Amino acid sequence: MEAPLIIRKKRDGLALSREEIFGFVERYMRGEIPDYQLAALLMAIYLRGLDGRETADLTEAMIRSGQILDLSEFPQPKVDKHSTGGVGDKTSLIVAPVAAAAGLMVPMISGRGLGHTGGTLDKLESIPGFNTSLTLEEFRRVLGACGMGLIGQTDDLAPADRRLYALRDVTATVESIPLISASILSKKLAEGIDGLVLDVKTGSGAFMKTLEDSRALAERMVAIGTACGKKVKAVITDMSQPLGCAVGNALEVIECIEALKGRGPRDLMDVSRELTARMLLVGGVEASLESARARFDSILASGAALEKFAQAIAEQGADPRVVEDYSLFAAAQFEDSVVAPEEGYVAALDAQTMGRASMVLGAGRERLDSVIDPAVGLVFEKKVGDAVAAGERICAIYSNDRSRVGRVREMIRGAIRISPEPVITQPLVLGEAGRTNFGF
Amino acid sequence: MEAPLIIRKKRDGLALSREEIFGFVERYMRGEIPDYQLAALLMAIYLRGLDGRETADLTEAMIRSGQILDLSEFPQPKVDKHSTGGVGDKTSLIVAPVAAAAGLMVPMISGRGLGHTGGTLDKLESIPGFNTSLTLEEFRRVLGACGMGLIGQTDDLAPADRRLYALRDVTATVESIPLISASILSKKLAEGIDGLVLDVKTGSGAFMKTLEDSRALAERMVAIGTACGKKVKAVITDMSQPLGCAVGNALEVIECIEALKGRGPRDLMDVSRELTARMLLVGGVEASLESARARFDSILASGAALEKFAQAIAEQGADPRVVEDYSLFAAAQFEDSVVAPEEGYVAALDAQTMGRASMVLGAGRERLDSVIDPAVGLVFEKKVGDAVAAGERICAIYSNDRSRVGRVREMIRGAIRISPEPVITQPLVLGEAGRTNFGF
Repeated sequence: MEAPLIIRKKRDGLALSREEIFGFVERYMRGEIPDYQLAALLMAIYLRGLDGRETADLTEAMIRSGQILDLSEFPQPKVDKHSTGGVGDKTSLIVAPVAAAAGLMVPMISGRGLGHTGGTLDKLESIPGFNTSLTLEEFRRVLGACGMGLIGQTDDLAPADRRLYALRDVTATVESIPLISASILSKKLAEGIDGLVLDVKTGSGAFMKTLEDSRALAERMVAIGTACGKKVKAVITDMSQPLGCAVGNALEVIECIEALKGRGPRDLMDVSRELTARMLLVGGVEASLESARARFDSILASGAALEKFAQAIAEQGADPRVVEDYSLFAAAQFEDSVVAPEEGYVAALDAQTMGRASMVLGAGRERLDSVIDPAVGLVFEKKVGDAVAAGERICAIYSNDRSRVGRVREMIRGAIRISPEPVITQPLVLGEAGRTNFGF
Repeated sequence: MEAPLIIRKKRDGLALSREEIFGFVERYMRGEIPDYQLAALLMAIYLRGLDGRETADLTEAMIRSGQILDLSEFPQPKVDKHSTGGVGDKTSLIVAPVAAAAGLMVPMISGRGLGHTGGTLDKLESIPGFNTSLTLEEFRRVLGACGMGLIGQTDDLAPADRRLYALRDVTATVESIPLISASILSKKLAEGIDGLVLDVKTGSGAFMKTLEDSRALAERMVAIGTACGKKVKAVITDMSQPLGCAVGNALEVIECIEALKGRGPRDLMDVSRELTARMLLVGGVEASLESARARFDSILASGAALEKFAQAIAEQGADPRVVEDYSLFAAAQFEDSVVAPEEGYVAALDAQTMGRASMVLGAGRERLDSVIDPAVGLVFEKKVGDAVAAGERICAIYSNDRSRVGRVREMIRGAIRISPEPVITQPLVLGEAGRTNFGF
């Protein structure tokens, strides 16, 4: 069918056939359909939606635009975790080593940060020498050697996703649940995995600001992944305040290493445990959520996860002694503080503002071509619910450019709310989607 | 404001400001906004709409993309007529000479036919030597010499309309009432006119198939034109069967010349009279619809309109003797007939199919680059409501390629419906929009 007729069909709210979706993506990738026709179709999809079957077809069409990583030579179940992104969202560096130590293979392909959210690649690259730009052949070798690997997106896997995303970004068609779902899943399913655990963040620091939207995204992704023959679970977790205490690349990696030593902040440990437990279930190495959670704790206690992470660091070209010697990381020159203006309880630490403050320091990207400073960032010494005395430090600011600190301090102050009364904190895991519900 | 933010605003159903609309059009015309962003905006407009103020702003932005014809040196009121297009829709060649003879200046810029609808330029070019590609300077000279002129769209006037239309055509965003309104009015108002009469066709042969859509388009265009400071009236007229008897270029011009001699088919005379009468009202040369209709009849009877048409033909480079000697037109080689299969009353002559049949003969364009044969076409000897005997001719087929006649005859047969009972014909004028209602 001609491109304008396919656009017209979606414009009029009709479902596109599998052939129409595959044909459109294929012809676009061959240069036979111009950007302006895809832009019109994307806006029609944004406003008219795609049903579950259409979204699964779009996902498959994007996967087929490139190769699928073949990991069949390895005996382990292949399971990945994906987060929709947030502030201080560093669980990948914890769940991947624990899951690999538990006998899974974790082929994790991640992204960079933009705006207030951080990116796993930026965090990893704060480890001096860590190479995230492996070829698929090198990636396969690392996976074989240690059961985990952490690299950036390559043009070999789901190249249509990159092209579509670039066009969505400039045509106001990003925030569409079916398009987001297809984008995430096409990249992940091209990794050749058997199962996937999705961490859909919700709240001010997340892409999805409401629980309703987060639930819709989680359910859509589980449905598509299942339709594509994969075991998929999704949890919806809080992103109203930063996750853990550190926000900033080296600071977050150090926090993860501490977590792998059993000394991470409670919220970070809890979310990492819930995600890893579901990976173990999806991969079939544990049979119940309870036993899978216990496995997470015992692997941490044994030191096997820390050892796995050190091994992965070495395999990807960096010095594994960083897990013991934090002085190998770049350190910021200046340390400043934001203190509590009055006695009370921390009622809010607005995640989006904290992410933006960290970006202003140089820990994140304002634009695609911004340069990241690995050393700078924030460390929260109090989190929501904690009691504070007047003048007690809530947040440490680590910077290399003192001229930005005033502005950053103002941003942080505006994002802190202190209540005279004790505050009731909300649960970290706010919902779940997947074939079986294990009942929180 | 950045283009993606403007697209997002319309995507979310918000009204765009005048500055946003002007800025978008200007930057697009300067090449600073690419086609894919305009395509996304057009789809958002298609699905979310534009209110009256936004449509007027878009119309003005498109007018300002080029020059506005300055006819202020001429004393006459400048009034044009525009039809949304149909089958056998040839009123321009009647209303322009009558209105010019009545003292108006009619600077008519017209289009070519596509698909089942005919185009005024194609009809005019069946007059051997008639030049529709005048420069604006030549056009002004012709207008000064005879008070009327008939040319094609030029890049000098509303060039944004051409670019937008070309993009809408390939992105399934043509059938949008605000976009159609802005397209029509930007071209017309760039003619430097004081007033405009719109003939919005409704029915199978029209662009707008339902009375409801036609009324919405008519009302929107009157509102915009009025907002732009022009006197605008719109009538909604029937296009369920071809207008007049002839469909095909030279055949239609001959029918118009006959009409200017007072011998046109009743429906063509009636629609032309209603349109011309409103042009005379809009131009202020008549004060009531009744006197304006009488003026139409008296001008025809005086021969002044025929003389005016002959003068315009001469001014635009053709031989004015065609108005007396029809042998100067190209004639088709073959004549065939479609006859009534049974006795009864003609209940339907489906306009769209008749237009398509005429296109198959070569009278219209299947594609933009199709070549028109001026001689071929159809002449209906019966119209809806007429009584027919079995075997009596309903339609003559004039062709130059006999191999197509079989298919054409089948199409025409399928589009004719004969009823055993007398049929009630609907009124030709089905509605009206404009500041004053003169009450049919």
